[in-house]
Amino acid sequence: MAVELFNNGKHVCLAFYDLVDEEHDHAVQCNQFLIADSGHGALIDPGGNLTYNALLMAMQRYFPSKELQYFLASHPDPDIIASVNKWFVASPCKVMISQLWTRFVPHFTTGRDIEGRIIGIPDQGMNIPLGDMMIKAVPAHFMHSEGNFQFYDPVAKILFSGDLGVSLVDHTVASEPVKDFDAHIPKMEGFHRRYMISNKIMRFWANMVRQLDIEMIVPQHGQRFVGKAMCNRLIDWIEKVTCGVDLMTQDNYHLP
Amino acid sequence: MAVELFNNGKHVCLAFYDLVDEEHDHAVQCNQFLIADSGHGALIDPGGNLTYNALLMAMQRYFPSKELQYFLASHPDPDIIASVNKWFVASPCKVMISQLWTRFVPHFTTGRDIEGRIIGIPDQGMNIPLGDMMIKAVPAHFMHSEGNFQFYDPVAKILFSGDLGVSLVDHTVASEPVKDFDAHIPKMEGFHRRYMISNKIMRFWANMVRQLDIEMIVPQHGQRFVGKAMCNRLIDWIEKVTCGVDLMTQDNYHLP
Repeated sequence: MAVELFNNGKHVCLAFYDLVDEEHDHAVQCNQFLIADSGHGALIDPGGNLTYNALLMAMQRYFPSKELQYFLASHPDPDIIASVNKWFVASPCKVMISQLWTRFVPHFTTGRDIEGRIIGIPDQGMNIPLGDMMIKAVPAHFMHSEGNFQFYDPVAKILFSGDLGVSLVDHTVASEPVKDFDAHIPKMEGFHRRYMISNKIMRFWANMVRQLDIEMIVPQHGQRFVGKAMCNRLIDWIEKVTCGVDLMTQDNYHLP
Repeated sequence: MAVELFNNGKHVCLAFYDLVDEEHDHAVQCNQFLIADSGHGALIDPGGNLTYNALLMAMQRYFPSKELQYFLASHPDPDIIASVNKWFVASPCKVMISQLWTRFVPHFTTGRDIEGRIIGIPDQGMNIPLGDMMIKAVPAHFMHSEGNFQFYDPVAKILFSGDLGVSLVDHTVASEPVKDFDAHIPKMEGFHRRYMISNKIMRFWANMVRQLDIEMIVPQHGQRFVGKAMCNRLIDWIEKVTCGVDLMTQDNYHLP
Protein backbone atom coordinates (compact mmCIF):
# COMPACT_ATOMS: atom_id res chain seq x y z
CA MET A 1 0.00 0.00 0.00
CA ALA A 2 1.28 3.46 -0.87
CA VAL A 3 2.37 5.81 1.94
CA GLU A 4 1.56 9.48 1.33
CA LEU A 5 4.67 11.40 2.29
CA PHE A 6 3.08 14.70 1.22
CA ASN A 7 -0.23 15.80 -0.29
CA ASN A 8 -1.55 19.36 -0.58
CA GLY A 9 -4.14 18.48 -3.21
CA LYS A 10 -1.97 19.73 -6.05
CA HIS A 11 1.35 18.15 -5.24
CA VAL A 12 1.70 14.56 -4.03
CA CYS A 13 4.67 12.42 -2.96
CA LEU A 14 4.08 8.71 -2.55
CA ALA A 15 6.33 5.94 -1.29
CA PHE A 16 5.90 2.22 -1.87
CA TYR A 17 7.54 0.01 0.75
CA ASP A 18 6.00 -3.41 0.25
CA LEU A 19 6.30 -4.26 -3.45
CA VAL A 20 9.23 -6.62 -2.85
CA ASP A 21 8.62 -9.69 -0.72
CA GLU A 22 12.24 -9.89 0.37
CA GLU A 23 11.97 -13.34 1.91
CA HIS A 24 10.08 -15.02 -0.91
CA ASP A 25 12.00 -13.18 -3.64
CA HIS A 26 15.46 -13.62 -1.99
CA ALA A 27 15.89 -9.94 -2.77
CA VAL A 28 16.84 -6.83 -0.87
CA GLN A 29 13.84 -4.77 0.30
CA CYS A 30 13.59 -1.50 -1.62
CA ASN A 31 11.36 1.56 -1.87
CA GLN A 32 9.87 3.25 -4.95
CA PHE A 33 8.63 6.83 -5.19
CA LEU A 34 6.18 8.87 -7.20
CA ILE A 35 5.96 12.65 -7.41
CA ALA A 36 2.87 14.11 -9.08
CA ASP A 37 2.42 17.84 -9.57
CA SER A 38 -0.59 19.38 -11.32
CA GLY A 39 -1.27 16.14 -13.21
CA HIS A 40 2.36 15.57 -14.26
CA GLY A 41 4.25 12.62 -12.87
CA ALA A 42 7.74 11.32 -12.22
CA LEU A 43 8.88 8.04 -10.72
CA ILE A 44 12.06 7.95 -8.63
CA ASP A 45 14.06 4.70 -8.57
CA PRO A 46 11.07 2.55 -9.61
CA GLY A 47 13.10 -0.64 -9.36
CA GLY A 48 13.38 -3.87 -11.27
CA ASN A 49 11.08 -6.47 -12.67
CA LEU A 50 9.91 -7.57 -9.22
CA THR A 51 8.16 -4.24 -8.60
CA TYR A 52 6.98 -3.20 -12.06
CA ASN A 53 3.44 -4.60 -12.16
CA ALA A 54 2.41 -3.51 -8.68
CA LEU A 55 3.82 -0.01 -9.18
CA LEU A 56 2.09 0.38 -12.53
CA MET A 57 -1.25 -0.50 -10.95
CA ALA A 58 -0.77 1.58 -7.82
CA MET A 59 0.07 4.82 -9.63
CA GLN A 60 -3.09 4.86 -11.81
CA ARG A 61 -5.02 6.41 -8.92
CA TYR A 62 -2.89 9.55 -9.24
CA PHE A 63 -2.40 9.86 -12.99
CA PRO A 64 -2.46 7.59 -16.04
CA SER A 65 0.82 5.72 -16.56
CA LYS A 66 0.47 6.61 -20.23
CA GLU A 67 1.34 10.15 -19.22
CA LEU A 68 4.39 9.35 -17.08
CA GLN A 69 6.90 12.08 -17.89
CA TYR A 70 10.11 11.05 -16.08
CA PHE A 71 11.86 8.01 -14.75
CA LEU A 72 14.46 9.54 -12.41
CA ALA A 73 17.29 7.14 -11.57
CA SER A 74 19.82 7.84 -8.83
CA HIS A 75 22.21 5.33 -10.42
CA PRO A 76 22.04 2.20 -12.63
CA ASP A 77 21.73 -0.66 -10.09
CA PRO A 78 19.12 -3.36 -10.84
CA ASP A 79 16.92 -2.52 -7.83
CA ILE A 80 16.76 1.06 -9.20
CA ILE A 81 16.26 0.70 -12.92
CA ALA A 82 16.07 -2.89 -14.23
CA SER A 83 12.40 -2.32 -15.20
CA VAL A 84 13.29 0.49 -17.60
CA ASN A 85 12.47 -1.50 -20.74
CA LYS A 86 8.92 -2.10 -19.48
CA TRP A 87 8.39 1.56 -18.59
CA PHE A 88 9.64 2.55 -22.06
CA VAL A 89 6.94 0.33 -23.57
CA ALA A 90 4.13 1.27 -21.15
CA SER A 91 4.66 5.04 -21.16
CA PRO A 92 6.27 7.91 -23.06
CA CYS A 93 8.68 8.56 -20.14
CA LYS A 94 12.22 9.75 -20.45
CA VAL A 95 14.93 8.37 -18.16
CA MET A 96 17.12 10.91 -16.41
CA ILE A 97 20.37 9.53 -15.03
CA SER A 98 23.97 10.68 -14.59
CA GLN A 99 25.66 11.35 -17.92
CA LEU A 100 28.19 8.69 -16.89
CA TRP A 101 25.53 6.02 -17.40
CA THR A 102 23.46 7.08 -20.42
CA ARG A 103 25.31 4.69 -22.72
CA PHE A 104 24.92 1.80 -20.25
CA VAL A 105 21.13 2.06 -19.91
CA PRO A 106 20.43 0.66 -23.44
CA HIS A 107 21.87 -2.68 -22.26
CA PHE A 108 18.68 -3.10 -20.18
CA THR A 109 16.64 -2.82 -23.38
CA THR A 110 16.30 -4.49 -26.75
CA GLY A 111 17.56 -1.26 -28.34
CA ARG A 112 14.16 -0.43 -29.85
CA ASP A 113 12.27 2.83 -29.26
CA ILE A 114 14.93 4.35 -27.00
CA GLU A 115 16.26 7.15 -29.18
CA GLY A 116 16.07 10.51 -27.40
CA ARG A 117 14.63 8.91 -24.24
CA ILE A 118 17.78 8.60 -22.10
CA ILE A 119 18.84 12.04 -20.84
CA GLY A 120 22.15 12.60 -19.08
CA ILE A 121 22.22 14.72 -15.92
CA PRO A 122 25.47 16.74 -15.94
CA ASP A 123 27.90 16.24 -13.06
CA GLN A 124 26.97 19.53 -11.38
CA GLY A 125 23.27 18.53 -11.16
CA MET A 126 20.25 20.39 -12.59
CA ASN A 127 16.68 21.52 -11.98
CA ILE A 128 14.12 19.27 -13.65
CA PRO A 129 10.74 20.89 -14.44
CA LEU A 130 7.64 18.88 -13.46
CA GLY A 131 4.19 20.48 -13.61
CA ASP A 132 4.50 23.82 -11.81
CA MET A 133 7.65 22.98 -9.84
CA MET A 134 11.27 21.94 -10.24
CA ILE A 135 12.92 18.81 -8.83
CA LYS A 136 16.57 19.35 -7.93
CA ALA A 137 19.03 16.65 -9.04
CA VAL A 138 21.70 17.02 -6.34
CA PRO A 139 25.24 15.63 -6.88
CA ALA A 140 25.91 12.51 -4.80
CA HIS A 141 28.74 10.99 -6.81
CA PHE A 142 30.53 8.05 -5.15
CA MET A 143 27.59 7.51 -2.76
CA HIS A 144 27.86 4.82 -3.90
CA SER A 145 27.88 4.99 -7.70
CA GLU A 146 30.55 7.08 -9.51
CA GLY A 147 27.81 9.09 -11.23
CA ASN A 148 25.02 9.40 -8.65
CA PHE A 149 22.21 11.85 -7.87
CA GLN A 150 19.73 12.47 -5.09
CA PHE A 151 16.42 14.19 -5.85
CA TYR A 152 15.15 17.09 -3.73
CA ASP A 153 11.51 18.15 -3.85
CA PRO A 154 11.33 21.81 -2.68
CA VAL A 155 7.51 21.79 -2.35
CA ALA A 156 7.41 18.82 0.01
CA LYS A 157 10.92 19.59 1.37
CA ILE A 158 11.86 15.95 0.90
CA LEU A 159 15.31 14.70 -0.05
CA PHE A 160 15.13 11.32 -1.81
CA SER A 161 18.58 10.17 -0.82
CA GLY A 162 19.05 6.96 -2.83
CA ASP A 163 21.47 4.62 -1.08
CA LEU A 164 22.44 7.16 1.58
CA GLY A 165 20.71 6.66 4.93
CA VAL A 166 19.65 3.15 3.92
CA SER A 167 18.69 0.62 6.60
CA LEU A 168 18.38 -3.12 6.10
CA VAL A 169 15.02 -4.08 7.61
CA ASP A 170 11.96 -5.98 6.40
CA HIS A 171 9.19 -4.22 4.49
CA THR A 172 6.81 -3.93 7.46
CA VAL A 173 9.45 -2.05 9.46
CA ALA A 174 10.59 -0.06 6.39
CA SER A 175 7.27 1.75 6.04
CA GLU A 176 7.58 3.36 9.52
CA PRO A 177 9.67 6.49 10.18
CA VAL A 178 12.76 6.11 12.35
CA LYS A 179 11.77 6.72 15.99
CA ASP A 180 15.03 6.35 17.92
CA PHE A 181 18.11 7.40 15.95
CA ASP A 182 20.68 5.74 18.21
CA ALA A 183 18.81 2.43 18.13
CA HIS A 184 18.64 2.75 14.33
CA ILE A 185 22.40 3.08 13.76
CA PRO A 186 23.14 -0.68 13.81
CA LYS A 187 20.66 -1.16 10.94
CA MET A 188 22.59 1.33 8.78
CA GLU A 189 26.19 0.87 9.79
CA GLY A 190 27.29 -2.30 7.97
CA PHE A 191 25.82 -1.14 4.67
CA HIS A 192 27.37 2.32 4.81
CA ARG A 193 30.81 1.05 5.77
CA ARG A 194 31.02 -1.26 2.77
CA TYR A 195 28.79 0.22 0.04
CA MET A 196 29.81 3.87 0.52
CA ILE A 197 33.17 4.88 -0.86
CA SER A 198 35.03 7.33 1.39
CA ASN A 199 34.53 9.63 4.36
CA LYS A 200 35.93 12.52 2.29
CA ILE A 201 32.83 12.34 0.06
CA MET A 202 30.48 12.03 3.06
CA ARG A 203 31.82 15.34 4.40
CA PHE A 204 31.37 17.15 1.04
CA TRP A 205 27.78 15.89 0.95
CA ALA A 206 27.01 17.01 4.52
CA ASN A 207 28.36 20.51 3.81
CA MET A 208 26.17 20.74 0.70
CA VAL A 209 22.84 19.45 2.04
CA ARG A 210 22.99 21.63 5.16
CA GLN A 211 22.06 24.45 2.77
CA LEU A 212 18.74 22.76 1.87
CA ASP A 213 15.47 23.22 3.79
CA ILE A 214 14.80 19.54 4.57
CA GLU A 215 11.78 18.13 6.44
CA MET A 216 12.27 14.51 5.42
CA ILE A 217 15.08 12.27 4.14
CA VAL A 218 13.79 9.19 2.35
CA PRO A 219 16.30 6.50 1.32
CA GLN A 220 15.72 3.78 -1.24
CA HIS A 221 15.93 0.90 1.27
CA GLY A 222 14.46 0.87 4.76
CA GLN A 223 13.07 3.63 6.96
CA ARG A 224 12.72 7.38 6.43
CA PHE A 225 13.82 10.26 8.66
CA VAL A 226 11.07 12.76 9.51
CA GLY A 227 11.48 16.26 10.94
CA LYS A 228 14.45 18.62 10.93
CA ALA A 229 15.92 17.25 14.17
CA MET A 230 15.96 13.66 12.91
CA CYS A 231 17.31 14.69 9.49
CA ASN A 232 20.12 16.60 11.17
CA ARG A 233 20.99 13.56 13.28
CA LEU A 234 21.39 11.59 10.05
CA ILE A 235 23.50 14.27 8.35
CA ASP A 236 25.75 14.53 11.41
CA TRP A 237 26.16 10.75 11.49
CA ILE A 238 26.88 10.43 7.75
CA GLU A 239 29.58 13.09 8.05
CA LYS A 240 31.51 10.90 10.50
CA VAL A 241 31.21 7.47 8.83
CA THR A 242 34.48 5.98 7.62
CA CYS A 243 33.85 3.59 4.80
CA GLY A 244 34.87 1.89 1.57
CA VAL A 245 38.42 2.61 0.52
CA ASP A 246 39.17 4.19 3.92
CA LEU A 247 38.96 0.68 5.39
CA MET A 248 40.65 -1.38 2.66
CA THR A 249 44.21 -2.69 3.11
CA GLN A 250 46.49 -5.01 1.10
CA ASP A 251 44.90 -7.83 3.14
CA ASN A 252 41.73 -7.38 1.08
CA TYR A 253 43.70 -7.99 -2.14
CA HIS A 254 45.27 -11.44 -2.06
CA LEU A 255 45.06 -14.23 -4.64
CA PRO A 256 42.66 -16.99 -3.56
CA MET B 1 32.51 -13.11 -35.05
CA ALA B 2 34.15 -14.81 -32.09
CA VAL B 3 37.88 -14.31 -31.51
CA GLU B 4 39.71 -17.37 -30.18
CA LEU B 5 41.94 -16.12 -27.38
CA PHE B 6 43.14 -19.65 -26.61
CA ASN B 7 42.43 -23.14 -27.91
CA ASN B 8 44.39 -26.31 -27.18
CA GLY B 9 41.63 -28.65 -28.32
CA LYS B 10 40.46 -29.32 -24.78
CA HIS B 11 40.31 -25.81 -23.36
CA VAL B 12 38.92 -22.83 -25.28
CA CYS B 13 38.60 -19.10 -24.48
CA LEU B 14 36.47 -17.01 -26.81
CA ALA B 15 35.85 -13.29 -26.94
CA PHE B 16 32.94 -11.52 -28.66
CA TYR B 17 33.69 -7.94 -29.64
CA ASP B 18 30.96 -7.04 -32.14
CA LEU B 19 27.62 -8.02 -30.56
CA VAL B 20 26.80 -4.40 -29.70
CA ASP B 21 26.39 -1.94 -32.55
CA GLU B 22 27.38 1.01 -30.38
CA GLU B 23 26.32 3.64 -32.88
CA HIS B 24 22.95 2.17 -33.77
CA ASP B 25 22.21 1.08 -30.20
CA HIS B 26 23.45 4.31 -28.53
CA ALA B 27 25.26 1.97 -26.18
CA VAL B 28 28.78 1.52 -24.93
CA GLN B 29 30.77 -1.14 -26.81
CA CYS B 30 31.39 -4.18 -24.64
CA ASN B 31 32.99 -7.62 -24.82
CA GLN B 32 31.62 -11.00 -23.74
CA PHE B 33 33.63 -14.13 -22.96
CA LEU B 34 33.22 -17.87 -22.97
CA ILE B 35 35.48 -20.44 -21.33
CA ALA B 36 34.90 -24.08 -22.24
CA ASP B 37 36.89 -26.91 -20.69
CA SER B 38 36.32 -30.57 -21.45
CA GLY B 39 32.74 -29.88 -22.54
CA HIS B 40 31.86 -27.66 -19.56
CA GLY B 41 31.17 -23.99 -20.10
CA ALA B 42 31.11 -20.64 -18.34
CA LEU B 43 30.23 -17.22 -19.67
CA ILE B 44 32.03 -14.17 -18.26
CA ASP B 45 30.14 -10.85 -18.24
CA PRO B 46 27.72 -11.91 -21.00
CA GLY B 47 26.02 -8.53 -21.01
CA GLY B 48 22.51 -7.23 -21.38
CA ASN B 49 19.58 -7.76 -23.66
CA LEU B 50 21.41 -6.27 -26.65
CA THR B 51 23.88 -9.16 -26.75
CA TYR B 52 21.82 -12.13 -25.57
CA ASN B 53 20.56 -13.61 -28.85
CA ALA B 54 23.83 -13.38 -30.74
CA LEU B 55 25.81 -14.83 -27.86
CA LEU B 56 23.37 -17.71 -27.44
CA MET B 57 23.72 -18.61 -31.12
CA ALA B 58 27.51 -18.15 -31.25
CA MET B 59 28.26 -20.43 -28.33
CA GLN B 60 26.37 -23.46 -29.68
CA ARG B 61 29.42 -24.38 -31.79
CA TYR B 62 31.37 -25.05 -28.59
CA PHE B 63 28.76 -26.64 -26.34
CA PRO B 64 24.97 -26.67 -26.00
CA SER B 65 23.64 -23.64 -24.11
CA LYS B 66 21.40 -26.06 -22.27
CA GLU B 67 24.53 -27.23 -20.48
CA LEU B 68 25.89 -23.82 -19.52
CA GLN B 69 27.24 -24.25 -16.01
CA TYR B 70 28.19 -20.72 -14.88
CA PHE B 71 27.40 -17.10 -15.56
CA LEU B 72 30.36 -15.32 -13.95
CA ALA B 73 29.69 -11.63 -13.28
CA SER B 74 32.44 -9.19 -12.32
CA HIS B 75 29.79 -6.82 -10.89
CA PRO B 76 26.07 -6.00 -11.42
CA ASP B 77 26.14 -3.30 -14.13
CA PRO B 78 23.63 -3.66 -17.00
CA ASP B 79 26.28 -4.25 -19.69
CA ILE B 80 27.55 -7.16 -17.54
CA ILE B 81 24.44 -8.96 -16.35
CA ALA B 82 21.11 -7.46 -17.51
CA SER B 83 20.43 -10.60 -19.60
CA VAL B 84 20.49 -12.85 -16.53
CA ASN B 85 16.76 -13.57 -16.60
CA LYS B 86 17.05 -14.92 -20.15
CA TRP B 87 20.05 -17.12 -19.31
CA PHE B 88 18.16 -18.49 -16.30
CA VAL B 89 15.35 -19.55 -18.65
CA ALA B 90 17.56 -20.85 -21.48
CA SER B 91 20.03 -22.81 -19.38
CA PRO B 92 20.56 -24.41 -15.97
CA CYS B 93 23.40 -21.96 -15.21
CA LYS B 94 24.22 -20.54 -11.82
CA VAL B 95 25.28 -16.92 -11.45
CA MET B 96 28.42 -16.28 -9.44
CA ILE B 97 28.86 -12.70 -8.24
CA SER B 98 30.22 -10.89 -5.19
CA GLN B 99 28.25 -11.73 -2.04
CA LEU B 100 27.54 -7.98 -1.82
CA TRP B 101 25.20 -8.29 -4.82
CA THR B 102 23.42 -11.65 -4.49
CA ARG B 103 20.28 -10.01 -3.11
CA PHE B 104 20.26 -7.37 -5.86
CA VAL B 105 20.37 -9.82 -8.79
CA PRO B 106 16.73 -11.02 -8.31
CA HIS B 107 15.61 -7.49 -9.28
CA PHE B 108 16.66 -8.34 -12.87
CA THR B 109 14.24 -11.26 -12.79
CA THR B 110 10.59 -11.99 -12.23
CA GLY B 111 11.57 -13.91 -9.09
CA ARG B 112 10.68 -17.28 -10.60
CA ASP B 113 13.06 -20.26 -10.81
CA ILE B 114 15.98 -18.44 -9.18
CA GLU B 115 16.23 -20.31 -5.88
CA GLY B 116 19.73 -21.68 -5.32
CA ARG B 117 21.00 -20.21 -8.61
CA ILE B 118 22.67 -17.01 -7.35
CA ILE B 119 25.92 -17.88 -5.58
CA GLY B 120 27.89 -15.29 -3.62
CA ILE B 121 31.66 -15.11 -4.08
CA PRO B 122 33.20 -14.28 -0.68
CA ASP B 123 35.28 -11.10 -0.41
CA GLN B 124 38.58 -12.96 -0.41
CA GLY B 125 37.80 -14.63 -3.76
CA MET B 126 37.69 -18.35 -4.54
CA ASN B 127 38.60 -21.08 -7.03
CA ILE B 128 35.66 -22.10 -9.23
CA PRO B 129 35.84 -25.65 -10.69
CA LEU B 130 35.03 -25.95 -14.42
CA GLY B 131 35.66 -29.23 -16.25
CA ASP B 132 39.21 -30.27 -15.34
CA MET B 133 40.44 -26.81 -14.26
CA MET B 134 39.75 -24.03 -11.78
CA ILE B 135 38.93 -20.41 -12.59
CA LYS B 136 40.27 -17.99 -9.98
CA ALA B 137 37.87 -15.23 -8.83
CA VAL B 138 40.40 -12.52 -7.89
CA PRO B 139 39.37 -9.63 -5.57
CA ALA B 140 39.01 -6.33 -7.45
CA HIS B 141 36.72 -4.48 -5.03
CA PHE B 142 36.23 -0.75 -5.79
CA MET B 143 37.45 -1.23 -9.38
CA HIS B 144 34.89 0.06 -9.86
CA SER B 145 32.10 -1.73 -7.98
CA GLU B 146 32.29 -2.13 -4.18
CA GLY B 147 32.05 -5.91 -4.56
CA ASN B 148 33.98 -6.73 -7.73
CA PHE B 149 35.94 -9.70 -9.13
CA GLN B 150 38.24 -10.42 -12.03
CA PHE B 151 38.51 -13.95 -13.41
CA TYR B 152 41.89 -15.60 -14.04
CA ASP B 153 42.19 -18.64 -16.28
CA PRO B 154 45.40 -20.48 -15.31
CA VAL B 155 45.33 -22.79 -18.37
CA ALA B 156 45.20 -19.94 -20.89
CA LYS B 157 47.04 -17.56 -18.50
CA ILE B 158 44.41 -14.92 -19.22
CA LEU B 159 43.16 -12.34 -16.72
CA PHE B 160 39.63 -11.18 -17.57
CA SER B 161 39.93 -7.79 -15.92
CA GLY B 162 36.36 -6.45 -16.07
CA ASP B 163 36.39 -2.63 -16.13
CA LEU B 164 40.11 -2.38 -15.48
CA GLY B 165 42.21 -1.64 -18.56
CA VAL B 166 39.10 -0.63 -20.50
CA SER B 167 39.43 1.53 -23.62
CA LEU B 168 36.61 3.40 -25.32
CA VAL B 169 36.86 2.51 -29.02
CA ASP B 170 34.47 1.16 -31.63
CA HIS B 171 33.93 -2.58 -32.05
CA THR B 172 36.19 -2.94 -35.12
CA VAL B 173 39.14 -1.50 -33.18
CA ALA B 174 38.15 -3.38 -29.99
CA SER B 175 38.80 -6.80 -31.54
CA GLU B 176 42.49 -6.00 -32.19
CA PRO B 177 45.21 -6.29 -29.49
CA VAL B 178 46.88 -3.09 -28.33
CA LYS B 179 49.95 -2.46 -30.50
CA ASP B 180 51.43 0.74 -29.06
CA PHE B 181 50.87 1.19 -25.34
CA ASP B 182 51.74 4.89 -25.20
CA ALA B 183 49.39 5.70 -28.07
CA HIS B 184 46.69 3.66 -26.29
CA ILE B 185 46.76 5.64 -23.02
CA PRO B 186 44.43 8.45 -24.18
CA LYS B 187 41.72 5.85 -24.95
CA MET B 188 41.86 4.58 -21.34
CA GLU B 189 42.63 7.64 -19.28
CA GLY B 190 39.29 9.48 -19.04
CA PHE B 191 37.40 6.32 -18.10
CA HIS B 192 39.87 5.25 -15.41
CA ARG B 193 40.06 8.70 -13.82
CA ARG B 194 36.30 8.88 -13.31
CA TYR B 195 35.00 5.30 -13.07
CA MET B 196 37.80 3.93 -10.86
CA ILE B 197 37.68 4.83 -7.20
CA SER B 198 41.11 5.55 -5.73
CA ASN B 199 44.81 5.14 -6.46
CA LYS B 200 45.20 3.33 -3.11
CA ILE B 201 43.14 0.44 -4.52
CA MET B 202 45.03 0.47 -7.84
CA ARG B 203 48.29 -0.10 -5.95
CA PHE B 204 46.86 -3.01 -3.91
CA TRP B 205 45.69 -4.60 -7.16
CA ALA B 206 49.06 -4.18 -8.90
CA ASN B 207 50.89 -5.80 -5.97
CA MET B 208 48.50 -8.74 -6.08
CA VAL B 209 48.41 -9.49 -9.83
CA ARG B 210 52.20 -9.32 -10.18
CA GLN B 211 52.12 -12.75 -8.47
CA LEU B 212 50.09 -14.26 -11.35
CA ASP B 213 51.58 -15.78 -14.53
CA ILE B 214 49.75 -13.58 -17.07
CA GLU B 215 50.02 -13.80 -20.87
CA MET B 216 46.93 -11.74 -21.66
CA ILE B 217 44.76 -9.11 -19.94
CA VAL B 218 41.30 -8.84 -21.49
CA PRO B 219 39.00 -6.04 -20.31
CA GLN B 220 35.24 -5.89 -20.81
CA HIS B 221 35.32 -2.84 -23.11
CA GLY B 222 37.84 -2.19 -25.87
CA GLN B 223 41.17 -3.78 -26.70
CA ARG B 224 43.17 -6.58 -25.03
CA PHE B 225 46.80 -6.64 -23.91
CA VAL B 226 48.84 -9.56 -25.27
CA GLY B 227 52.22 -10.81 -24.03
CA LYS B 228 53.99 -10.37 -20.71
CA ALA B 229 55.67 -7.10 -21.70
CA MET B 230 52.41 -5.43 -22.72
CA CYS B 231 50.57 -6.74 -19.64
CA ASN B 232 53.31 -5.36 -17.41
CA ARG B 233 53.03 -1.97 -19.11
CA LEU B 234 49.34 -1.95 -18.21
CA ILE B 235 49.94 -3.01 -14.59
CA ASP B 236 52.63 -0.34 -14.18
CA TRP B 237 50.28 2.30 -15.63
CA ILE B 238 47.29 1.27 -13.48
CA GLU B 239 49.45 1.48 -10.36
CA LYS B 240 50.06 5.19 -11.02
CA VAL B 241 46.55 6.37 -12.03
CA THR B 242 44.94 8.84 -9.64
CA CYS B 243 41.21 8.64 -9.90
CA GLY B 244 37.74 8.87 -8.41
CA VAL B 245 37.68 10.24 -4.89
CA ASP B 246 41.36 11.28 -5.18
CA LEU B 247 40.20 13.99 -7.60
CA MET B 248 36.92 15.10 -5.99
CA THR B 249 36.72 18.41 -4.08
CA GLN B 250 33.89 20.40 -2.47
CA ASP B 251 33.49 22.04 -5.91
CA ASN B 252 31.94 18.78 -7.15
CA TYR B 253 29.27 18.98 -4.43
CA HIS B 254 27.22 22.16 -4.83
CA LEU B 255 23.45 22.57 -5.07
CA PRO B 256 22.30 23.20 -8.64
